[in-house]
Amino acid sequence: MHSEFDLIARYFTPATPDPESGVVMGVGDDCALLAPTPGRRLAVSVDTSVCGVHFPPDAPPEAVGHRALAVSLSDLAAMGARARWCFMSLSLDESEDAWLEGFSRGFLTLCEATGTRLAGGDITRGELAIGVTVMGEVAPEAAMTRGGGRPGDLVAVTGALGGGAGGLAAWQAGERDPVHPLLQRYLTPRPRLAAGEALAGLATAAVDISDGLLADLGHILEHSGGGAHLEPETLPLAEGLVAALGEEGARQAALTGGDDYELLVCLPAEELDEARRRLAALELPLTVVGRLTRAPGVSGVPAAQRTGWQHFRGAPPGGTS
Amino acid sequence: MHSEFDLIARYFTPATPDPESGVVMGVGDDCALLAPTPGRRLAVSVDTSVCGVHFPPDAPPEAVGHRALAVSLSDLAAMGARARWCFMSLSLDESEDAWLEGFSRGFLTLCEATGTRLAGGDITRGELAIGVTVMGEVAPEAAMTRGGGRPGDLVAVTGALGGGAGGLAAWQAGERDPVHPLLQRYLTPRPRLAAGEALAGLATAAVDISDGLLADLGHILEHSGGGAHLEPETLPLAEGLVAALGEEGARQAALTGGDDYELLVCLPAEELDEARRRLAALELPLTVVGRLTRAPGVSGVPAAQRTGWQHFRGAPPGGTS
Repeated sequence: MHSEFDLIARYFTPATPDPESGVVMGVGDDCALLAPTPGRRLAVSVDTSVCGVHFPPDAPPEAVGHRALAVSLSDLAAMGARARWCFMSLSLDESEDAWLEGFSRGFLTLCEATGTRLAGGDITRGELAIGVTVMGEVAPEAAMTRGGGRPGDLVAVTGALGGGAGGLAAWQAGERDPVHPLLQRYLTPRPRLAAGEALAGLATAAVDISDGLLADLGHILEHSGGGAHLEPETLPLAEGLVAALGEEGARQAALTGGDDYELLVCLPAEELDEARRRLAALELPLTVVGRLTRAPGVSGVPAAQRTGWQHFRGAPPGGTS
Repeated sequence: MHSEFDLIARYFTPATPDPESGVVMGVGDDCALLAPTPGRRLAVSVDTSVCGVHFPPDAPPEAVGHRALAVSLSDLAAMGARARWCFMSLSLDESEDAWLEGFSRGFLTLCEATGTRLAGGDITRGELAIGVTVMGEVAPEAAMTRGGGRPGDLVAVTGALGGGAGGLAAWQAGERDPVHPLLQRYLTPRPRLAAGEALAGLATAAVDISDGLLADLGHILEHSGGGAHLEPETLPLAEGLVAALGEEGARQAALTGGDDYELLVCLPAEELDEARRRLAALELPLTVVGRLTRAPGVSGVPAAQRTGWQHFRGAPPGGTS
């Protein structure tokens, strides 16, 4: 096994000091030294992806690297924050060069695509797991939280739903075609960072859909109070989902499947046009799926659709900040 | 097994918004929102402690919690940064209430003692491991790095050395008395945060002693250039170390043992009195153990003393930032 330092030097481009990236001192000292933008809040989230709990042991290494970072960046997106820096803790039982090469390519390619600098990390011996800390910046008044939703607000989602669950089902059924649209949704989700920034200031509340639409809407309601009425027939379904799971299964995957990493936002009806205009520039649809209500609870969803989708994760659901 | 949310609510006091702590939004939203101090650099370090690699499986849970945070805070100390926030990723194969209760007490007591706010984290299912991200702040001109040492600078260490290795040896020999001085040094090291802040501006370079004096001095030389002459007979030895390991073993533990989490600093001779005065206020000695030289390499240490101490950790040494 290579030493930690060899591995870092070999597979992870050390962040060299670079004024533009805000990295004053990167990998190689006791700490990374960062220069936060004056006047901004720092949004921070940590998520751990454990092999066999959060991703299948035989998942392509590139997807594992991409996904471990994507799920954390998705939390920044839900706050409306701009991604700045990340730190990675890799726990490895053995270091195979081919695996590490793919893993680091997946991780670093998403770093580059999202303007996130890998500013540090550590590598330890242990069962395969990836801990990622992401840090972003957001103007104090623009941060979207879970607690700002108000009765009458529209409930809307970016993109399409059910792809995470549908992709996992396809994977478990033996599908391995890397360009299969559902597999792509599951293995290499795209964190909606640009959409989060675009919606900040319009949306009253936001959350990313990691545990499933119903569960994540529940987080909003818990913090905002009140309830919601959903219209499940309006849910935007991921490409190929109905073909794979049937109409009923597709709807259920979209409601409860999780691992979609789309944004669920609440916003006043009069902001809808502007929100859609901004997302159109990103070629991303924004679909109204319901409305917040004064009455608690979620109406409009048949009881049979509320539970039952098994997705690939351990008993405790994934990370909170 | 409790859900992640139960566990967090039960054992880890969620960081509530608190202007003084800089936590605008804590556990419970997608991200923590923090308010960095204008004009400061952000010092960030991540470290993972894996059961059976970085601590013995039967270590007291309180010590495991303390230690996992302490080793990360020690990196902030080495930069001269003031600790502000931390994030904890706990991976657990099973949650025993008694273990979690002790673990969280050890972790949170050190948070409180060092002014560090636990601002978020996640809990996942997996083999026992603790990932900690610590964030501190330091004035741009005060940050101590590994690269500022100059030929002629004194090499000095805080506190006493060899306690980490001596304590591990005692633990492995079956010692379990919680007030045994060497065990305490090994199980619950005190990160030298106040000393780091006090020395910032005086020291030209600093590192914390986690891998052993010789290895960590090597990191300084790698970044600062040049070499060092050490006087091993001047090394301050931890209480009880000679009695436990004999004169020769004690000296070797102090040179190569690691896990001491003292600071090694380089500073011009004319700053020594002021540095000692500042540390005296913390009741912490500062001992000169050598000097930086223009010639590369380390002189003064017999070859037999350079290697050989086996300490409890995996093949790749512990975290870098």
